[in-house]
Amino acid sequence: MTEQSDVKLTYAELVGLLEAIFLRHGVSGDAARVLAANCAACERDGSFSHGIFRMPGYVSTLNSGWVDGQALPLVEDCAPSFVRVDAKGGFAQPALEAARPLVLDKVKQNGIAVLAIRRSHHFSALWPDVEPFAEQGLVALSFVNSMACVVPQGGKKALFGTNPVAFATPRKGRPPFVFDQASSAIAHGDVQIAAREGHALKPGQGVDRDGQPTTDPKAVLDGGALLPFGGHKGSSIALMVEILAAALTGGHFSWEFDWSAHEGAQTPFTGQLFIIIDPERGGNASFEARVSQLCDMVLEAGQDRLPGDRRHAIRAVAEKDGIPLKGETYARLKQFAEG
Amino acid sequence: MTEQSDVKLTYAELVGLLEAIFLRHGVSGDAARVLAANCAACERDGSFSHGIFRMPGYVSTLNSGWVDGQALPLVEDCAPSFVRVDAKGGFAQPALEAARPLVLDKVKQNGIAVLAIRRSHHFSALWPDVEPFAEQGLVALSFVNSMACVVPQGGKKALFGTNPVAFATPRKGRPPFVFDQASSAIAHGDVQIAAREGHALKPGQGVDRDGQPTTDPKAVLDGGALLPFGGHKGSSIALMVEILAAALTGGHFSWEFDWSAHEGAQTPFTGQLFIIIDPERGGNASFEARVSQLCDMVLEAGQDRLPGDRRHAIRAVAEKDGIPLKGETYARLKQFAEG
Repeated sequence: MTEQSDVKLTYAELVGLLEAIFLRHGVSGDAARVLAANCAACERDGSFSHGIFRMPGYVSTLNSGWVDGQALPLVEDCAPSFVRVDAKGGFAQPALEAARPLVLDKVKQNGIAVLAIRRSHHFSALWPDVEPFAEQGLVALSFVNSMACVVPQGGKKALFGTNPVAFATPRKGRPPFVFDQASSAIAHGDVQIAAREGHALKPGQGVDRDGQPTTDPKAVLDGGALLPFGGHKGSSIALMVEILAAALTGGHFSWEFDWSAHEGAQTPFTGQLFIIIDPERGGNASFEARVSQLCDMVLEAGQDRLPGDRRHAIRAVAEKDGIPLKGETYARLKQFAEG
Repeated sequence: MTEQSDVKLTYAELVGLLEAIFLRHGVSGDAARVLAANCAACERDGSFSHGIFRMPGYVSTLNSGWVDGQALPLVEDCAPSFVRVDAKGGFAQPALEAARPLVLDKVKQNGIAVLAIRRSHHFSALWPDVEPFAEQGLVALSFVNSMACVVPQGGKKALFGTNPVAFATPRKGRPPFVFDQASSAIAHGDVQIAAREGHALKPGQGVDRDGQPTTDPKAVLDGGALLPFGGHKGSSIALMVEILAAALTGGHFSWEFDWSAHEGAQTPFTGQLFIIIDPERGGNASFEARVSQLCDMVLEAGQDRLPGDRRHAIRAVAEKDGIPLKGETYARLKQFAEG
């Protein structure tokens, strides 16, 4: 095998390459476009644990027959402010896209709406799901459960997924403020990266298969589990995410789905909830300016940066210079697309 | 002063006594009833940092003229799923009561509603605000900001309030699951109790006036500050609470109000947001049973108890045997009511 040169791709080029991979592995045109844009955005913004690092997992999952790349999400108009989607075993992001116009209508009409997605696979970061709402002037919250890999506080058995919560809000004069944080002390993708690169975890992030504290990422991945962030408070947030993303939507809990018949499957088959608010319907015209003022004050108080600042800085460089990929990574992606 | 015997009061007796205190200090009949029931419920359930421990603070605040006990909340019907309330410088709980019928109508009609309260004083726990919604079969989230006493992660200057988040959901066959947790590493009321009783704080809960870590509750209260729970993740939650409870409602941020002209004032003058969901409108009939199943699984996984379990156990004893008060505390309350 000849040595590959490193490359820099535009966002559109990377989306095109990833879209070809999804199409090549049985994903419908609509879903392939959504998933490729999502994954490329993570890579562009430096969310590397959810960028092209995930592509082998997508491919292996699709090859296993665990996820239905051709699923047509069924959007149900349940109530004036309540939309429900059966993703029918497909990915969550195309289900969101299918529901978006109806959800936006409801939010604009009524001031708030809930979107409950079930029977969906979510394998990416959560911030790409909420940021576009904030770019349209809306406040968005989202909750997604995943696969049992986090022990409840004081417990021995993994039950919760990493169960992230994402929040996005518009700000006056700058990009939306967005955070996306796992309810675990560390994201599962970061444990995978640590294992691959041979880094130790920090104390308090994981336990081994016997429930004993460990800093070895391989021990966590090999039958061990993650700990919630912030002790019992983080554990309660993880539990709330199970309630909102699975019980309320009608999706699976993080420990319920059984992929044992699908070797190579990696995507959690659960549910996802969105709460979207239109601040303008509350009659408070100064909202976006007030959020900007608040963010200024947090930086003045000495916090070194806000969530999302690093992403936007990396994005700015990528938009100017291109998205850097290692040569062997680029070659592997092309192989996935064409091979 | 003669020695006082300890007493046990029924919930109704304690409500009556506290109601008399609020009335005696200039609170309207409607508001006095609401505040007394709220404070008595905290004491009954063992939420001691927000029970009768707070009464001297209520009295001193009312005497200072900082809060308007006679305020008539103005309820605005902003949109089909959006209710806004101007509490007009009164307490938050009577504002919630004033809006409750309209909010419940909207939730039942549309599946979700938002209630945004501004210019309100909140001086109690947050769980009593959300639990009644869950008793009616609804899922409730609430966010309230308070007074600057928490430094952003990595920052030096107190900016956030303790900024609790409360969550309540119905469960099949048992009382609602409810949690109410400060975004700070410890509740401000618990710091006050530690200072009064001479207990040290745990490491990582507070800093002194120079921003240095301390376990002395008096150093925290004397110009120091609390730390967020769970590092930067808790800090982001505290920031989200400022955005939702203050920026979105049109209330004050935790550092904005100026009570210097009101000696003895203790109540933060901010805002509060509620998000209320009717799970039945989502067409998922098994919701309450699924939440019960999930709670069973958490206990089976080894967590020793769920949030709210301790409260319900203490409540059961209080309902059987009465709510215990120390003799001198009871005498002081009677003095507040009659003196």
